[in-house]
Amino acid sequence: MINKRVIVLILGVLLLIEAFFLFISAIVSAAYKGSDTQAFLLAGGITLLFGAVSYFSNRKADKNIGKREGFLIVSLVWVVFSIFGALPFVISQEIPSYTDAFFETISGFTTTGASILDDIERMSMGLLFWRSLTQWLGGMGIIVLSLSILPFLGIGGMQLFSAEVPGLTPDKLHPKVKETAKRLWAIYTLFTIAEFILLMLGGMGWFDALNHSFTTMATGGYSTKQASIAHFDSPFIHYVIIAFMFIAGMNFSLYYFALHGKVSKIWKNEEFRYYFGFVAVFTLMIGFGLWVSENYGLEKSIRDAMFQVVSIVTTTGFATNDYLMWSPSLTFGIFLLMFFGGSSGSTGGGIKIVRIVVVLKNSYYEVKRLMHPKAVIPIRLNHKIMTEKLVMNVLAFIVFYFLIFVFGVAIMSFLGLDLDTSMGAVAATLGNIGPGIGDVGPSENFAFIPDAGKWVLSLLMLLGRLELFTVLAILTPVFWRK
Amino acid sequence: MINKRVIVLILGVLLLIEAFFLFISAIVSAAYKGSDTQAFLLAGGITLLFGAVSYFSNRKADKNIGKREGFLIVSLVWVVFSIFGALPFVISQEIPSYTDAFFETISGFTTTGASILDDIERMSMGLLFWRSLTQWLGGMGIIVLSLSILPFLGIGGMQLFSAEVPGLTPDKLHPKVKETAKRLWAIYTLFTIAEFILLMLGGMGWFDALNHSFTTMATGGYSTKQASIAHFDSPFIHYVIIAFMFIAGMNFSLYYFALHGKVSKIWKNEEFRYYFGFVAVFTLMIGFGLWVSENYGLEKSIRDAMFQVVSIVTTTGFATNDYLMWSPSLTFGIFLLMFFGGSSGSTGGGIKIVRIVVVLKNSYYEVKRLMHPKAVIPIRLNHKIMTEKLVMNVLAFIVFYFLIFVFGVAIMSFLGLDLDTSMGAVAATLGNIGPGIGDVGPSENFAFIPDAGKWVLSLLMLLGRLELFTVLAILTPVFWRK
Repeated sequence: MINKRVIVLILGVLLLIEAFFLFISAIVSAAYKGSDTQAFLLAGGITLLFGAVSYFSNRKADKNIGKREGFLIVSLVWVVFSIFGALPFVISQEIPSYTDAFFETISGFTTTGASILDDIERMSMGLLFWRSLTQWLGGMGIIVLSLSILPFLGIGGMQLFSAEVPGLTPDKLHPKVKETAKRLWAIYTLFTIAEFILLMLGGMGWFDALNHSFTTMATGGYSTKQASIAHFDSPFIHYVIIAFMFIAGMNFSLYYFALHGKVSKIWKNEEFRYYFGFVAVFTLMIGFGLWVSENYGLEKSIRDAMFQVVSIVTTTGFATNDYLMWSPSLTFGIFLLMFFGGSSGSTGGGIKIVRIVVVLKNSYYEVKRLMHPKAVIPIRLNHKIMTEKLVMNVLAFIVFYFLIFVFGVAIMSFLGLDLDTSMGAVAATLGNIGPGIGDVGPSENFAFIPDAGKWVLSLLMLLGRLELFTVLAILTPVFWRK
Repeated sequence: MINKRVIVLILGVLLLIEAFFLFISAIVSAAYKGSDTQAFLLAGGITLLFGAVSYFSNRKADKNIGKREGFLIVSLVWVVFSIFGALPFVISQEIPSYTDAFFETISGFTTTGASILDDIERMSMGLLFWRSLTQWLGGMGIIVLSLSILPFLGIGGMQLFSAEVPGLTPDKLHPKVKETAKRLWAIYTLFTIAEFILLMLGGMGWFDALNHSFTTMATGGYSTKQASIAHFDSPFIHYVIIAFMFIAGMNFSLYYFALHGKVSKIWKNEEFRYYFGFVAVFTLMIGFGLWVSENYGLEKSIRDAMFQVVSIVTTTGFATNDYLMWSPSLTFGIFLLMFFGGSSGSTGGGIKIVRIVVVLKNSYYEVKRLMHPKAVIPIRLNHKIMTEKLVMNVLAFIVFYFLIFVFGVAIMSFLGLDLDTSMGAVAATLGNIGPGIGDVGPSENFAFIPDAGKWVLSLLMLLGRLELFTVLAILTPVFWRK
């Protein structure tokens, strides 16, 4: 039997936390004398009520949380948060459609950044703040989830960075979830503050600086400006955001080690080296391409290339330039990067660098094995041998990723979107990126997509954010048996 | 040391065979009093000369053929055949560019069917015959290759149908390559004759009937008409071709067993059941879509859907209708099928049904394993357990397929093709299909692609035809070491 009461209990506690942040947004709104203050108070009140009832009616529940409860809690948190988080948008009537509001909110909590807004600047300050806050909170959630909860659930190669699989994990992280969470959040908050200060120094107002710091560290990509980062005509600001997107795309456990004096672990980490290498190679290629084909100077070519490469590979989705206006091969380079994703244990979404590395290695080794079929040629990661089981797990993840991609594109094209737009919308939401290609490029938005499509894309954001298997497991009959 | 002399010897023998078929084409040309007879005689003479020199100068070579010699021979045969097979097109000046002629010829021998011709009917009869013949010969080659040579080289899950992996292979085929080849070719020829007779009965002229029988059984798709099968306004002819495309997309070892009285083996074969199921499901979905969205009657909707589904899934590439004119989701359905491919051991290209089945099963089981991480849940195919190694091999094949797809699209878009066309051209050549999407759809051709692109696509046809690994192995340093 699944322990339903403990699930409701925990969701109740989390709703209380969400209510708290809704009230914080009410204060921000009030400070700006926004028309949305009441909407936040009402939404916060409703959330508080549901949270309190869920909590108090299950206070005495059996506190045992097994694997299946874990799967359900993790999947439901994002959904429940989005259901209530969408309220202020609807109540204030600034996003009248609940479908749109839900899409915008789950896009926030999953740190995707796909938006249905076509005129961001007309929104009230409180709602803009809440919108960025959903991403920041989502980022917090995902770091803890990916570094300390998913490995225990055995999700798609996440054991790679867990301390639970003997002989496999490169490094041991602090074993207690609570302690780990606190430390990771401290790191996350410190980086957010550092970026905030640097953006202020770069001439950004405090409100914009705060919002962009929230959404950079979450690799979310919501901006307070319709033109995204292109609005800020300052190379310094661009470079600061590049740096912090890159930081947010790294495995947070590396910072944890760095804080304990083991800075060398960063460069020794194989995933980091590939992450750095992919960014460098794509930046140079696309930068050179822009320099040759567009009339930018060398610095702007490299900067725009680097910004877009880092923004897409980390799945942030900020824009300083519309890559759909570039020549086809450069656009394709960006589209390709949509299938990379940040490092494991980062706030980035997508397939993740470590899985790409495992697949590339395995493919190369498979050819080697062809010549020496009897030889045992194991795959190594960080000098340690990976079991076949783990490699299979990673391969299955990637196959699933593409299966879901294909199903998503089939549905979107069935709803009447053309092929490029369907592929772009699915790649951008499943990978938690934000902008895609076709009619959902960086200068466009998701408003025109039919409601059914918005719900499908919302599901894809959830699937991508929770490493697919967390959600898929719940959909199997075997999950509910016995 | 690689035994180079035996490689040259065997290629020499094969060139003598090619010369023989060039002379046959000269006779066909002469019978039609075509202007291309001399071109065939000259091309045949050159091929004969090279074949004879290669043969006689290496007659006394050590006859030992190891694995590496096997890889080289298999990869080189298709290239060498295309180099000489392109000669009549160039010598006759009907395809003046050697690049175009080579593309057309390797597209023939690999049974792809991608063409650079924009007015097929203006070609001489001899050249049309030779063009169809390259496909028929390519189909003969691939059946023997996939059922009796590649399994011994251990190519990407081809062991699935070989008798060499104990406990794994469903069925034992006749062990001696020569005997097996003869019997398979007899089956292949009988089907070709049967189709020829049926097409004649359907009202096709003998020349068209012969050519289309050649290219149907090879799942090649070259037609003697610019409009492909749409030229023939006869439901009977359409159904005949549907039936024989379907037959050609089945594993030929099943016919072998059927001839020995074991007809039940066909339906018991899991790959066949999925093959049948995929065709049925896609036909119904697309047929229903056409019935609703186009103004066809029910019969024509189902027929056109079935024709296109079977044509693409078997990688034949014939057309009775331009699927690019359909609504986006129907076109996407067809595009998706480009990644399926025929059954293993058929003349079809692409990923192959059996690999798709293994991947789908593995993905489903991976979710199951998540819930029961300690349980051993092996994958079964035809009621037999597959080793992890074999599953890995299949997964690696598919990953490679997509890696090559991505690289191909990157190169094509670099050459200036738009995204749809790049994806279409690469999917259609790598999968040995013929027509793609974008500007290389069924009503278009490959003439406009830059020469560099034609060579890249030629390489993709070769890679796809030889199950990727055969060619890739040669490109690794480890192949040449020691």
